[in-house]
Amino acid sequence: MKLIDRLSEIVGVAHVVTGGGPEGPAPWEQDWRGRSKGRALAMVRPGSTAEVADVVKLCAAEKVSIVPQGGNTGLVDGSIPDTSGTQVVMNLGRLKAVRSIDRKNMTITVEAGCILQSLHEVVEDAGFLFPLSLAAKGSCTIGGNLATNAGGTQVVRYGNARSLCLGLEVVTASGEIWSALSGLRKDNTGYDLRDLFIGSEGTLGIITAATMQLYPRAASQLTAWAALPSIHAALELLERARRVLSASLTGFELMGRFPVSMVRQHLSDLRMPALSTDDPYFVLIECSDAESESHARSLVEGLLSDAIESGEVSDAVVAESLSQVRDLWEVRESIPLAAYKEGLMAAHDISLPIASIPQFVDVTESRLLEAFPGVRISNFGHLGDGNLHYNVHAPSGESAAEFLRRYEEQIRQIVYDSVHQFAGSFSAEHGIGRLKLHWMDSYKSSVELNMMRSIKKALDPSSLMNPGCVVGGG
Amino acid sequence: MKLIDRLSEIVGVAHVVTGGGPEGPAPWEQDWRGRSKGRALAMVRPGSTAEVADVVKLCAAEKVSIVPQGGNTGLVDGSIPDTSGTQVVMNLGRLKAVRSIDRKNMTITVEAGCILQSLHEVVEDAGFLFPLSLAAKGSCTIGGNLATNAGGTQVVRYGNARSLCLGLEVVTASGEIWSALSGLRKDNTGYDLRDLFIGSEGTLGIITAATMQLYPRAASQLTAWAALPSIHAALELLERARRVLSASLTGFELMGRFPVSMVRQHLSDLRMPALSTDDPYFVLIECSDAESESHARSLVEGLLSDAIESGEVSDAVVAESLSQVRDLWEVRESIPLAAYKEGLMAAHDISLPIASIPQFVDVTESRLLEAFPGVRISNFGHLGDGNLHYNVHAPSGESAAEFLRRYEEQIRQIVYDSVHQFAGSFSAEHGIGRLKLHWMDSYKSSVELNMMRSIKKALDPSSLMNPGCVVGGG
Repeated sequence: MKLIDRLSEIVGVAHVVTGGGPEGPAPWEQDWRGRSKGRALAMVRPGSTAEVADVVKLCAAEKVSIVPQGGNTGLVDGSIPDTSGTQVVMNLGRLKAVRSIDRKNMTITVEAGCILQSLHEVVEDAGFLFPLSLAAKGSCTIGGNLATNAGGTQVVRYGNARSLCLGLEVVTASGEIWSALSGLRKDNTGYDLRDLFIGSEGTLGIITAATMQLYPRAASQLTAWAALPSIHAALELLERARRVLSASLTGFELMGRFPVSMVRQHLSDLRMPALSTDDPYFVLIECSDAESESHARSLVEGLLSDAIESGEVSDAVVAESLSQVRDLWEVRESIPLAAYKEGLMAAHDISLPIASIPQFVDVTESRLLEAFPGVRISNFGHLGDGNLHYNVHAPSGESAAEFLRRYEEQIRQIVYDSVHQFAGSFSAEHGIGRLKLHWMDSYKSSVELNMMRSIKKALDPSSLMNPGCVVGGG
Repeated sequence: MKLIDRLSEIVGVAHVVTGGGPEGPAPWEQDWRGRSKGRALAMVRPGSTAEVADVVKLCAAEKVSIVPQGGNTGLVDGSIPDTSGTQVVMNLGRLKAVRSIDRKNMTITVEAGCILQSLHEVVEDAGFLFPLSLAAKGSCTIGGNLATNAGGTQVVRYGNARSLCLGLEVVTASGEIWSALSGLRKDNTGYDLRDLFIGSEGTLGIITAATMQLYPRAASQLTAWAALPSIHAALELLERARRVLSASLTGFELMGRFPVSMVRQHLSDLRMPALSTDDPYFVLIECSDAESESHARSLVEGLLSDAIESGEVSDAVVAESLSQVRDLWEVRESIPLAAYKEGLMAAHDISLPIASIPQFVDVTESRLLEAFPGVRISNFGHLGDGNLHYNVHAPSGESAAEFLRRYEEQIRQIVYDSVHQFAGSFSAEHGIGRLKLHWMDSYKSSVELNMMRSIKKALDPSSLMNPGCVVGGG
């Protein structure tokens, strides 16, 4: 019997789909930006963990490799097939049930295919907070968030997806089910397999469900926007905010003048904060207070007036209503869309030890401008985590497509070499996938790469789980 | 040349010591309670990471196994040699330097042998907080804390040792140095090797240094003691405290009447809180406030008066001075000493999903009393993390030694079966070592055990790193 028929026997004929034809790949065969296009043997949509296990067992027996897929919102080609036409894409979208909420334990157990936004809604209805938040929340799934250790805007307080996960259910490369949906905050019985699967991008097994930590909802959430004379001032303000707001500091986002100007230009419907736009940097601060609106306001206003007095902040505004809060966040979150309208760019998702950011910015900008006079740098990101989205646009007036075709790799090399020099990471929150794999040899030690390959071989000896990602192979 | 001479060539003759003679093992060959005694070929004390690597290479070439040792304060025989007389104990005590503090990044890079208390002092002098705190802090080392993923009293807010670590330097089983002393809060470039080494108890490699997260110091720390009518009430109070204090809740310790009575009886010099001691449970609450003493006091007093009104708390007292704070903590922290004076016991370090604790306590107590009428249960621990130190003492008047010799394994079996039934862990914060290894097969799935063994084999193919611990072998 053909593989597709046997897959249909497991998941039902309606849940096995073949890929695109002559008119091009199906949406699930390409990344959401449409830049990378693969070709799969088929896409299967199992309806239960047992079906996932049976599909994996079948593929293992037939030596067919599997690409697990959540919302397919990744940016590193980690959830699309290669172009061989031999891989099976396993979409987890049907495994979307919330299995249980434990109020006293403050945990939720949810299946991998649950969309992050839906998870937020269920958790809010139950009176809690699930803090993981990122731009793709309407499409990405919690399984994908865990497989890539997603970050986002609340990491400064709550950590990455990894920090929020207490337990996993995983189908291993041999098709066994490892059920460890623990709700425990302390458990030292053996190696930390949970954190090994988290961030492994489907190359060691398939996450089918997870137990995640919940938090109490804040009594009040206050958002402020500040204009700053320099990036150095932004670091001073961060230090002050950490001291004054402590754990109430839930967001600290940096935006350079150029990305903000792109939002103003290309998304003129958005309400911008009523502040000067000439300053070189802007910061969005979020304070989530357990006590009250007035308590939060007095903390944030005190913070900002002290910062203005000491010269860290030139001007600032605190949102007066929920709609103003939304407006401020929308400016920040619209930067990628505005940049897209501006044209193609070389995008980087980097992190640095926070203290070295000003020097990194200076050095890298000079190197880029020396090599490519006129390039425009869009620097923004999650400063509280040392995570910058440091994107390089073609000089004004030049064809961005042509410029990037010629120089993109050289630009990346300059940025990543600079990141490496300052002990940073060339992938802070987006992962490696296939797209960044070739940088691993340049920036990771052979000791580390060899350990990763040994682990891959130990847990997936035939290299059938998402081969070609993270550690190569396949 | 003999191995000992070659070890001396690497670390210097003064830093190679042979073990105990006919008069018994040396202190570093036995656990600190003197219960388990091993015999080593030698103990080496390398003075640098390079020396650690050279010793490991030599031992690997000679097929001699290595037992890494920090402060040797563990409770599961994970840092002492077996009785073969063939193992080398590697004590990391000479690697104790603080390599750097990065104030803006709020991180410290420190060598493995640095004693936790010394680390606290350095960090406090720099104006920060390093929150990991446990009873053995005067002797245990940060390397040991990481190798065992230590917990302690601040986990409810800051997590275990794992949560505080951003980067490691490790000597692998083949004697290579993996230098990954990252100060990054976001880094998704490959598998999470850091968390794999953390908690692996020296069975995959030797942690030689770490970069740890620091926190701002609290403006005020307030401690309260409450008497409660039931363990169910303790859970209600925990839920309330989480809601009201949010991230300011840094400690939530539970104590049963029996352990508190042992402290009163055996350590009569300690100042007990001026409250009724007849209640079945007591709770110690710590609030660390970023704002001020008066703000903390109003929050805690509000919390307690609401809890009294709703019947969760029968009576409560808030410490009025630093010395009262110390007194309250001393009562809590003296329970192990008081229990030691009371006599031998079967000690358990367990964790449970928080909601199931009252039922677990009921069920387990009935089972124990049915099997062993008169046994006395000392139930205390870190309730905020679901972590109980659930210890069983012999009936009054019986010889504890004789009772335990006969029944200890049966008692453990009852407790652990009960823990397993409620989806808990039989080792919350103490690890597995050699002492708990034989329970792994009973309570961990074969899927999980097989993955652990595969990883052990991948990273330590000759099984020379602390063999016999965590995954067996050797």
